[in-house]
Amino acid sequence: FPGVGEGILERLENGEVVVGDGSFLLTLEKRGYLKAGLWTPEAVVEYPNAVRQLHMEFLRAGSNVMQTFTFSASEDNKESKYFEHAEEAMWAVEVLKALGKPVAATMCIGPDGDMHGVSPGECAVKLVKAGAAIVGVNCRFGPSTSLKMMKLMKAGLQAAGLEAHLMVQSLGFHTPDCGKGGFVDLPEYPSGLEPRAATRWDIQKYAREAYKLGVRYIGGCCGFEPYHIRAIAEELAPERGFWPPASDKHGSGSSLNMHTKPWIRARARRECWENLLPASGRPFCPSLSQPDV
Amino acid sequence: FPGVGEGILERLENGEVVVGDGSFLLTLEKRGYLKAGLWTPEAVVEYPNAVRQLHMEFLRAGSNVMQTFTFSASEDNKESKYFEHAEEAMWAVEVLKALGKPVAATMCIGPDGDMHGVSPGECAVKLVKAGAAIVGVNCRFGPSTSLKMMKLMKAGLQAAGLEAHLMVQSLGFHTPDCGKGGFVDLPEYPSGLEPRAATRWDIQKYAREAYKLGVRYIGGCCGFEPYHIRAIAEELAPERGFWPPASDKHGSGSSLNMHTKPWIRARARRECWENLLPASGRPFCPSLSQPDV
Amino acid sequence: FPGVGEGILERLENGEVVVGDGSFLLTLEKRGYLKAGLWTPEAVVEYPNAVRQLHMEFLRAGSNVMQTFTFSASEDNKESKYFEHAEEAMWAVEVLKALGKPVAATMCIGPDGDMHGVSPGECAVKLVKAGAAIVGVNCRFGPSTSLKMMKLMKAGLQAAGLEAHLMVQSLGFHTPDCGKGGFVDLPEYPSGLEPRAATRWDIQKYAREAYKLGVRYIGGCCGFEPYHIRAIAEELAPERGFWPPASDKHGSGSSLNMHTKPWIRARARRECWENLLPASGRPFCPSLSQPDV
Amino acid sequence: FPGVGEGILERLENGEVVVGDGSFLLTLEKRGYLKAGLWTPEAVVEYPNAVRQLHMEFLRAGSNVMQTFTFSASEDNKESKYFEHAEEAMWAVEVLKALGKPVAATMCIGPDGDMHGVSPGECAVKLVKAGAAIVGVNCRFGPSTSLKMMKLMKAGLQAAGLEAHLMVQSLGFHTPDCGKGGFVDLPEYPSGLEPRAATRWDIQKYAREAYKLGVRYIGGCCGFEPYHIRAIAEELAPERGFWPPASDKHGSGSSLNMHTKPWIRARARRECWENLLPASGRPFCPSLSQPDV
Repeated sequence: FPGVGEGILERLENGEVVVGDGSFLLTLEKRGYLKAGLWTPEAVVEYPNAVRQLHMEFLRAGSNVMQTFTFSASEDNKESKYFEHAEEAMWAVEVLKALGKPVAATMCIGPDGDMHGVSPGECAVKLVKAGAAIVGVNCRFGPSTSLKMMKLMKAGLQAAGLEAHLMVQSLGFHTPDCGKGGFVDLPEYPSGLEPRAATRWDIQKYAREAYKLGVRYIGGCCGFEPYHIRAIAEELAPERGFWPPASDKHGSGSSLNMHTKPWIRARARRECWENLLPASGRPFCPSLSQPDV
Repeated sequence: FPGVGEGILERLENGEVVVGDGSFLLTLEKRGYLKAGLWTPEAVVEYPNAVRQLHMEFLRAGSNVMQTFTFSASEDNKESKYFEHAEEAMWAVEVLKALGKPVAATMCIGPDGDMHGVSPGECAVKLVKAGAAIVGVNCRFGPSTSLKMMKLMKAGLQAAGLEAHLMVQSLGFHTPDCGKGGFVDLPEYPSGLEPRAATRWDIQKYAREAYKLGVRYIGGCCGFEPYHIRAIAEELAPERGFWPPASDKHGSGSSLNMHTKPWIRARARRECWENLLPASGRPFCPSLSQPDV
Repeated sequence: FPGVGEGILERLENGEVVVGDGSFLLTLEKRGYLKAGLWTPEAVVEYPNAVRQLHMEFLRAGSNVMQTFTFSASEDNKESKYFEHAEEAMWAVEVLKALGKPVAATMCIGPDGDMHGVSPGECAVKLVKAGAAIVGVNCRFGPSTSLKMMKLMKAGLQAAGLEAHLMVQSLGFHTPDCGKGGFVDLPEYPSGLEPRAATRWDIQKYAREAYKLGVRYIGGCCGFEPYHIRAIAEELAPERGFWPPASDKHGSGSSLNMHTKPWIRARARRECWENLLPASGRPFCPSLSQPDV
Repeated sequence: FPGVGEGILERLENGEVVVGDGSFLLTLEKRGYLKAGLWTPEAVVEYPNAVRQLHMEFLRAGSNVMQTFTFSASEDNKESKYFEHAEEAMWAVEVLKALGKPVAATMCIGPDGDMHGVSPGECAVKLVKAGAAIVGVNCRFGPSTSLKMMKLMKAGLQAAGLEAHLMVQSLGFHTPDCGKGGFVDLPEYPSGLEPRAATRWDIQKYAREAYKLGVRYIGGCCGFEPYHIRAIAEELAPERGFWPPASDKHGSGSSLNMHTKPWIRARARRECWENLLPASGRPFCPSLSQPDV
């Protein structure tokens, strides 16, 4: 099981693909250890076994990072998460850099830019100029919007003649209807998001597209369960040169090939799942929502 | 924490509400410990901590049963699960009864009856005549279809002048488009079911309706995560006289009432969630599927 | 242009297929000549040209009936339309028969039977026993529900050893979510029904299935525009031995085969349209509604 | 009935609201007089009564223009329709201007600009510089996209310090999923567009929003039936000072207030319809399509 301890930046400099981890807060809430809405991370103290178990699941799924499960102490893991404003993020990057730490800065902004209208491309440029070695987006939008953001950031950096490692951490939910504020403004947040949950096939596609874009740190955020992380690790197994431990218990659709019912056996092909347009089972519900703001 | 050890039948005879547990197979698969499709329960041996953790989560969620996680040894836990034919189920009930054990018989049939066209009402009658003390449905359909089944079983028993305890264990997925064979025949089974996943509000409604029907053993099956079980336990807390331990970490929508954004605070009311028609975020997907069979 | 003047019953006795006409009220309302909701047929007097024009369109589309555009004078055209109760319909049939006229009786009932719970099969039997030569359903449900009704009526007659000509006049709207009262109870009635409108391909399928069931009077009701009637006449052109006049201006999808854009030319095949699942362009709307009653 | 004969430009200069007409080709095709796909306007010669009737319907609906029903002779009615490229449109405008005619130039472009990437704002500027007195969009997108275009054109003109009358002629279909090429590239074009058809309430909203934007020529294109034009004329009756003749046969939802069923009477309020999210009755169909190009 290849060196979890190594630094993320070193891995990226070596040209490796880094698979991030997934959702701690929403996942622990569903398991009964955390309260939705406030998201204070007291579970680490109260239910250490539950937290350790989830960590283990992400590791088995193929993640090679060990995010400390806390938001308030984000400097510790050298990652300055959850900035809504380019300005604010830039300051944080400068402080961390002054402390001699390589930094990753991920922005909680959408394709339309930050709260002051600074575009994703400009944000990326500002952060790199401020010293960030890794830039990206984090936990506000679903897979397709997050990838769109990465394209804009990459284009911004290229236009400015700058370089940085790219990092993406999408939600595990589809949110094409989000406004600037991201998924928290959707009426389904936080406890009616189920119908938006990504399948493993959605995430394999996301991982492949991120890789093609040149993103080398690929992970998830709220809504990313262990099997979603495994989907990234499996999709990029050829590039990484190894399969995640939890793949012993998986088979990309092929574990069905011994089912007794022939029509279920027929689903034992990846193509079948990649082309599936899954139904919601909810004919009285709409496809999209109007965000509250 | 009231007596988990007591027998289920005794509790039902005492007029208590019994909250069942939820999904082991599908849940452990998503956590990376089990293979989809074949569902052999080797996880109990290979990853005992993971299984124990999930048991703990269901208990904290308010379940007062401890289902042995195995299908092949179902007599041990006095429950004869997974019968597709009334005939077959009847024989099993008779054997168990001969062994002097009180039995619960749940049928995997739909509103249109078993594979030989025996209606739910007739099934219930046959099972009770064969000696079953508890009858019900299990793991083939979503909440609304399962409740419809229970109504038909109850009516069948009433018409025959018989009595039995009623038991329901719905899927955690919405499946109004299922045919006779249940959710396994939907093209989304087993790894594209995400958009069908029930919210906690769907399950509170399910628990209340089951209770009104006279069902006193209310649990779940595939797709039922710990927070779904908690939703049953919270909905029926007034009747049971206590709240589940995991409710310390819940608040029926009210945990949002300290959020800094007023439009998110406004969601801190149960009514808001009960009336929500959640969007799928998938405008290219249909609402219903055609079952493969 | 084959004999419009001949009697409907004679044609049916000769084994011909009779193509009915379509919607007068809703269609004339959209053209600006009639008021929705009350549906008083004053247009015949006020705008005779508009009514004549629509008649002409249905004739050109292949209809071989000339429905007098009025409800209050339904005996005149030997058809006793719009009965909600089997009882009432039966009396009307007896009166008409006493007058020596061959009668067609179409019921406004659904698969669950009339307002007193008389099933479609029983209704058909009662009407035929009362003397009706033609029985069927009219103007309350969309194509698939109407066909389901016809199946039940046919089965009822067969079981009773009776015979009659079958007649179906579906709505031009899809209404799988209707209750007993039909489409008027849907919240979209009468001026938000647009997304439910049938395509010509839906109607060709309806005509073919009706024909296979043995129905020989096939027409439409509210929402049936001239091109829907043409779709019936074109689908059954081989059986009838001629094409409707308006087919000079049609081509079952093939009129696109000279389009300059190749991807539009590619749609010049009937299969392409028959397999199309057309999108609503309305991602904020549901698929089904709850009827008001 | 106020002066239909007057010139459009004069009316606009006087500050009047001009209500355009609607769809001739698609509407006459559905009535059986025209062939879909090629859209050659031979109906004017072959079925003059049918064309005259439709003209009459648009006039009764409140239109005060009399579009000559032909595309090939568009110079005749002083309107240069259907240009896909800003360049081409500009030339046409210059030629017409050289002939001493006031011109209206509507572009078939979308929010992303013309085929060469010229933005809507730039297009508007070019056309006005070339001499167009009226600029706008025509027949490629549904109501909301068309309005978005008008906003961009208006902003472009304002930024360039230019002025022109604004004109919008939306499709009568919802097309949020269109690409650059407009609705012809959707798989539903031309004979599966039914579920996308706008309701009268959609069009009243469109008319109001266009008016607020400063657009004073408001009409429709493919899919606009007479009752859609009436919806514009009724919405803007206060501003225009008169109601269209066909409103004798309308009542903005209020014609239901004498219905015998109370739940249908309850729909006799405009608010009820404005807030309705109409269902498609098609649970197996998606909300959006992927355009073919």
